Amino acid sequence: MNGGGGTSGADGDVSEPNKGIEDEDRRVVEQAQELQDAASSLIARTSNEENSVRQRAVSLDATIRGLRSSIDSQLGQRRIDPKLADKLEEELQRARCIMVDGDASAFFPSVPQGRFLRMFLGPINVRASRKDVQLKVKEEYNSYRDRTAFLFLVFPASLLVLRSWIWGGCLPAFPVQLYQAWLLFLYTGLALRENILRVNGSDIRSWWIYHHYCAMIMALVSLTWEIKGQPDCAQKQRGVQLFLQWAILQGVAMLLQNRYQRQRLYTRIALGKAKRMDVVWGETAGVDGQLWLLCPILFVLQGFEAYVGLLLLKTAFVWEISEWQVVFCGILLVLMAVGNFVNTVQTLAAKSKFKAKMKRSKTK
Amino acid sequence: MNGGGGTSGADGDVSEPNKGIEDEDRRVVEQAQELQDAASSLIARTSNEENSVRQRAVSLDATIRGLRSSIDSQLGQRRIDPKLADKLEEELQRARCIMVDGDASAFFPSVPQGRFLRMFLGPINVRASRKDVQLKVKEEYNSYRDRTAFLFLVFPASLLVLRSWIWGGCLPAFPVQLYQAWLLFLYTGLALRENILRVNGSDIRSWWIYHHYCAMIMALVSLTWEIKGQPDCAQKQRGVQLFLQWAILQGVAMLLQNRYQRQRLYTRIALGKAKRMDVVWGETAGVDGQLWLLCPILFVLQGFEAYVGLLLLKTAFVWEISEWQVVFCGILLVLMAVGNFVNTVQTLAAKSKFKAKMKRSKTK
Repeated sequence: MNGGGGTSGADGDVSEPNKGIEDEDRRVVEQAQELQDAASSLIARTSNEENSVRQRAVSLDATIRGLRSSIDSQLGQRRIDPKLADKLEEELQRARCIMVDGDASAFFPSVPQGRFLRMFLGPINVRASRKDVQLKVKEEYNSYRDRTAFLFLVFPASLLVLRSWIWGGCLPAFPVQLYQAWLLFLYTGLALRENILRVNGSDIRSWWIYHHYCAMIMALVSLTWEIKGQPDCAQKQRGVQLFLQWAILQGVAMLLQNRYQRQRLYTRIALGKAKRMDVVWGETAGVDGQLWLLCPILFVLQGFEAYVGLLLLKTAFVWEISEWQVVFCGILLVLMAVGNFVNTVQTLAAKSKFKAKMKRSKTK
Repeated sequence: MNGGGGTSGADGDVSEPNKGIEDEDRRVVEQAQELQDAASSLIARTSNEENSVRQRAVSLDATIRGLRSSIDSQLGQRRIDPKLADKLEEELQRARCIMVDGDASAFFPSVPQGRFLRMFLGPINVRASRKDVQLKVKEEYNSYRDRTAFLFLVFPASLLVLRSWIWGGCLPAFPVQLYQAWLLFLYTGLALRENILRVNGSDIRSWWIYHHYCAMIMALVSLTWEIKGQPDCAQKQRGVQLFLQWAILQGVAMLLQNRYQRQRLYTRIALGKAKRMDVVWGETAGVDGQLWLLCPILFVLQGFEAYVGLLLLKTAFVWEISEWQVVFCGILLVLMAVGNFVNTVQTLAAKSKFKAKMKRSKTK
């Protein structure tokens, strides 16, 4: 039928062959206008509905906060049974998890995008509106860290091995600079991704992001640092060598951390203690059982970081090397080591406090 | 009334002071569940409706393409009046503009996000779903380019002025490296923003993005390039000096271009010939009247770029300087100059073709 109609239409158009095109042309413009109207109304309607869900989410969040503080104050005045208080708080925690871990999370007001993201990307919004996309971003961040940790171990290790086996104790400039450029790219990527995760509801500690800003700056500065060759390589390249050794140790620690953190995160999610968007940052936490393995490694790493920093400063002041890069990197490494140490201790303290609370509620 | 009710409620609760909190606790969990359900259904409904608008947009786009090619083929077979064909094509163009410039544009399938964005940001979506946000991103990109062009002029100019007035003809390493680091940051930001613009529907030519990748690599390489001091500064720093002079010229060109391009874009939008998301890239186009001013500057700039590149290569081969950075930057500059030239000529050709067509349709 359709074919027949088409043929008869074509027959009728022979005298005026362009009539069909003209009609269709007009219809297309009309359809474009209709489509535009449909799109506008869909956008307006959606944004209205989203706003109403958003308001409900915000007010419910405020209610939960209020209830929590009133339970706490009742508990302080001993006007509530501690067992009941614990039960109530657990319920509240469950309510929060439902909101924050589910689709509703997309409607919470987001953390403002920091200066760092604006500086690189402009005012574009990097918040995923759907939970599954947010989780994909999180998963990709984890696997990026895994790949990275592997390179973090292999890159400096092969430089050091080649140095003693092939290059006769003297690192050539190019491979080292390639490594430094890779570090700069890596830390920029990590800092951007962590800022994006934060906008998407992760509660990563600010320090770990600042730490990556420092590392970016250090990689940039180290690029301008002349790698001196013969004669006297061993002495002149002492700083670079120490830095590479520290990097290897960090690679090992990162690999261990990534593995254990992922396990820990999954355990915590299963227990309902964490949101899936949380980044349990390597340097500060592990599966409880493995904490005794990780903690010493972390502290040794931080000690070694400070040691490399101090050694660089000593090189600058004792041997009177005039390069500003040496002093700058020295100070930066010491600062990073101190910051890492303080943050690790703080996290451990928060952890043992949480544990004590858990124990208390169990024994009761 | 409310106050009275609250008081009586408190009186009734004296025997069981936590009853209120328990009730509210239960209600909060229920509300959280309800909110979660509302959010899920809103997201599901919205994504359904968006899909249907998206399908309409895609099929209408296909219809427009089909009509266009059938008009062209009719025109080729002389079965349609050229005047009518022009009118019809103008109508189709108008239909496309309605779709692409309005809210419907958010529902067109987007350009896939390239490797560059994924490398730095991971799989996050940087497409703005609303036209006003897209335009804000575009506006911000333009003002970023303005600010940049100014620094592009001032930074190298002050380095050269200070060199001859204060530093006695010998550039110290630190300010030059600061400038190179700024260039690296700048080009990374530009490359990221242009990729984001492209995802948001801008039709920026690929070459200008590749050009910024090349510039990023060059800034990175130049950072590893040792700035040699006394004695014989003038000769050793010849390359750096030429590079700074070229940068000043580029700053002037960028300022002129930014101004005229913006005007031109607004004119084209007013004439319905361009979408507002188009990036009319400086190196290739200007307001028609000013093209005679811009074109020579652009070609001089490209010539100077190639000259600096060749000079670097000469330095490396004639004076037998062993630094690989000199050769690398030389080759890169020559490649960039050739690419810029080819792309400028291509754009001018497309422009004059378009003009000829316009003239033809006017004279008819």
